[in-house]
Amino acid sequence: MDDQKIQVTVWNEFQHEKRDLAVKSIYPDGIHETIASHLRKLDKVEVKTATLDQPEQGLSQQILDSTDVLIWWGHIAHNQVSNEAVLRVCQRVWEGMGLIVLHSGHFSKVFKALMGTSCNLKWREAQDSEILWVTSPGHPITAGINDHIRLEIEEMYGEHFDIPEPDETIFISSFTGGEVFRSGCVWKRGAGKVFYFRPGHETHPTYHHPLILRVIENAALWLAPTKQTYQQKYGKHFPINPVPKP
Amino acid sequence: MDDQKIQVTVWNEFQHEKRDLAVKSIYPDGIHETIASHLRKLDKVEVKTATLDQPEQGLSQQILDSTDVLIWWGHIAHNQVSNEAVLRVCQRVWEGMGLIVLHSGHFSKVFKALMGTSCNLKWREAQDSEILWVTSPGHPITAGINDHIRLEIEEMYGEHFDIPEPDETIFISSFTGGEVFRSGCVWKRGAGKVFYFRPGHETHPTYHHPLILRVIENAALWLAPTKQTYQQKYGKHFPINPVPKP
Amino acid sequence: MDDQKIQVTVWNEFQHEKRDLAVKSIYPDGIHETIASHLRKLDKVEVKTATLDQPEQGLSQQILDSTDVLIWWGHIAHNQVSNEAVLRVCQRVWEGMGLIVLHSGHFSKVFKALMGTSCNLKWREAQDSEILWVTSPGHPITAGINDHIRLEIEEMYGEHFDIPEPDETIFISSFTGGEVFRSGCVWKRGAGKVFYFRPGHETHPTYHHPLILRVIENAALWLAPTKQTYQQKYGKHFPINPVPKP
Amino acid sequence: MDDQKIQVTVWNEFQHEKRDLAVKSIYPDGIHETIASHLRKLDKVEVKTATLDQPEQGLSQQILDSTDVLIWWGHIAHNQVSNEAVLRVCQRVWEGMGLIVLHSGHFSKVFKALMGTSCNLKWREAQDSEILWVTSPGHPITAGINDHIRLEIEEMYGEHFDIPEPDETIFISSFTGGEVFRSGCVWKRGAGKVFYFRPGHETHPTYHHPLILRVIENAALWLAPTKQTYQQKYGKHFPINPVPKP
Repeated sequence: MDDQKIQVTVWNEFQHEKRDLAVKSIYPDGIHETIASHLRKLDKVEVKTATLDQPEQGLSQQILDSTDVLIWWGHIAHNQVSNEAVLRVCQRVWEGMGLIVLHSGHFSKVFKALMGTSCNLKWREAQDSEILWVTSPGHPITAGINDHIRLEIEEMYGEHFDIPEPDETIFISSFTGGEVFRSGCVWKRGAGKVFYFRPGHETHPTYHHPLILRVIENAALWLAPTKQTYQQKYGKHFPINPVPKP
Repeated sequence: MDDQKIQVTVWNEFQHEKRDLAVKSIYPDGIHETIASHLRKLDKVEVKTATLDQPEQGLSQQILDSTDVLIWWGHIAHNQVSNEAVLRVCQRVWEGMGLIVLHSGHFSKVFKALMGTSCNLKWREAQDSEILWVTSPGHPITAGINDHIRLEIEEMYGEHFDIPEPDETIFISSFTGGEVFRSGCVWKRGAGKVFYFRPGHETHPTYHHPLILRVIENAALWLAPTKQTYQQKYGKHFPINPVPKP
Repeated sequence: MDDQKIQVTVWNEFQHEKRDLAVKSIYPDGIHETIASHLRKLDKVEVKTATLDQPEQGLSQQILDSTDVLIWWGHIAHNQVSNEAVLRVCQRVWEGMGLIVLHSGHFSKVFKALMGTSCNLKWREAQDSEILWVTSPGHPITAGINDHIRLEIEEMYGEHFDIPEPDETIFISSFTGGEVFRSGCVWKRGAGKVFYFRPGHETHPTYHHPLILRVIENAALWLAPTKQTYQQKYGKHFPINPVPKP
Repeated sequence: MDDQKIQVTVWNEFQHEKRDLAVKSIYPDGIHETIASHLRKLDKVEVKTATLDQPEQGLSQQILDSTDVLIWWGHIAHNQVSNEAVLRVCQRVWEGMGLIVLHSGHFSKVFKALMGTSCNLKWREAQDSEILWVTSPGHPITAGINDHIRLEIEEMYGEHFDIPEPDETIFISSFTGGEVFRSGCVWKRGAGKVFYFRPGHETHPTYHHPLILRVIENAALWLAPTKQTYQQKYGKHFPINPVPKP
């Protein structure tokens, strides 16, 4: 592990790809490998993957302690993720780890725990197109993106999306049916940041789209914790009752 | 003037309605009168109107000092509004007056001065329908509105809308062309609040739509300054160099 | 129960007052009764109290369903509150119930669940004075408060307070030791709002201070859900998979 | 000019240092040179300075177009800065230029124009000490700073500071007199970001303090616009009426 590089871990529940031939044909090695293989092209980044069927569900303290940015894809196995693993992830975010939550991860235990809301939304699996409009030009997450990204077919997610008011809304989507959705949002949680990014239904080749990969790449770089900040001041684990006197 | 009631002033540049027969046919007495006549039905509210062609452009200190909530519609005469009037409006907002800026008022001097951004956007006059989706259910501004409002024909406004990150985003619109727009947003400025509400192109009967009127009514009630707050503490005019010692 | 009135429930773990004579001498009937007896003076409000030692910990579905605003004081018994009760409170907040969390309630399960952060802070029990400065003049929560409130002796809470960036910061405190603290903050969660208000260590007569009571009173009025909003649209319980088509 | 480096311009009205021997003894070449000489040590940065007495007040289009981050110190000459220069600065911020406003710059035309508020505050020149507490650990602007910075003597600034609710509050100060102040705040304006940083009265050696310089250095790096973003998409000057069709 190269301390000078950003350590990214792509976590995937990895269920659909093993059960469903249509999904497997799009992501033969799993959604995590498709995303990871893109990020491996970056000089500044070291990438590992982790999945639910690994020891400690791929979310051991050791793995998390060596992760600067965690990318999360989950859908049908949210409830299989242990509460202990969820707490470990949350604590690492509070210490400074970045977290990118993708698509159906909106209903993951981890995302709901960090948001404090129901994270509910409207949805429809049909033939909608999606246009993601940039609402924060200049934000590093939008680097290389013009004013929108168009996806020919995607699952629809619609408002009301029950999330805390975002610290910043970076993308808003429209769908063919006329719905809208805040599809790229960031929040600070402790010393870490969370980026929710909507696209990526398992039956569509969304994570092969170069602009979607570009957004994930941008986010991984932007969410990486700053050197010499929180971790160095307090150590890995958050103080319980610090009583400094100025 | 009844001090127990909320004093609402509906200001309109009142230009299109005098020049353009199509507009006049929709708003024969001006957009301001259509909105005002709805608000006059409310027990808690006293309503007056003001227009650009009045003395001091309808924005004298006396009028503003007796206004709790100012509603603003302007389009082709933004530059005719004097800088002095703009400053008077801003100061009253900082003192606690609520301000509702409608539609093309996004480019008014008043709104740009309070936002500190260019307030630019994309736009198109065509045959788009608009759907305004509620993104903050439970907000008083959405009282009586289900999860969306549909307008059969409206001018399109599209992102990127160059505004400061809203304190709260209450409506997001989609248009037939696939664009999206943050169409209901609030910001605090001093002791006052600003609500921008997108719909209302002069060639469409938008301000006759009961749900659009309901949103404006809700906003007028919500933006009214609280009794016993800023004005009572500091008087009408903001202190320049208060140096209290605790 | 009068449907036209705001239903406030003051919940208290009610432990210190039964064990500790010094606390009992300040709050002989419990902190909840001191707060409730003030709120009972308000025409618009109906008040009930609830405590940890009651059936279902005073947080039954029936009690919560008939509560518009819940006030929460807890300290040494946070872990005794059941996870089921915490979930019921959170769901009611998402449906629109207001929640006022006082002082050491920053470490309650309910507050941590709604914030998604560790809610940690610095603290010291000593002889500090506290000054709460108004940072949002004009906010209804500050009605009747001039620019600060001074408390002669209070427990010190210091930054960093590990909370999400507040939707609005309404009070910031200083302490004799030189520390600062964001002591009045609001956040939206679902259709409900949360107000954290710092003062109120059990060994000090803080909840007898008229300005502290005024802030709690203001907050109870401001946090009450709007008529004809979320609850009426969706019913009491949040929809799981609404798929409306516009 | 090296396009790979961050171009920082330190602008100073440069009045006190020429008139007042006490100030001159602390900042013999001006506050701008003290700050610039620190930033010149950074490999990634190229630094120039500019002052009010230069052609076009040191704020020509050419200078601004070659500036990634502008640092601003002003006090007694705010009104001498031309409205044209103010507009040029604002437009460059909207295009992506970072802006660091120091201390008494809170009342500069530029800051007031970007905030849309009065930017008023309480103040006192006395013998107060200031402690700046970190309220956003992990933020790049706090890199290398532990949980606070102590300044032995500084001018007091107190709340209420009339600013829009910050996108993020990074430092809050206390003063010996018991006042508090949001002394490090960031806001997005267009594609650019604004950082207000309180310390730096001209009669104190604040800009020689290594931690204050470190904050300014951190901010300069963090505020620099992202490559391949807004400017590249739209060109230097903001579009007036873009009407793209998706």
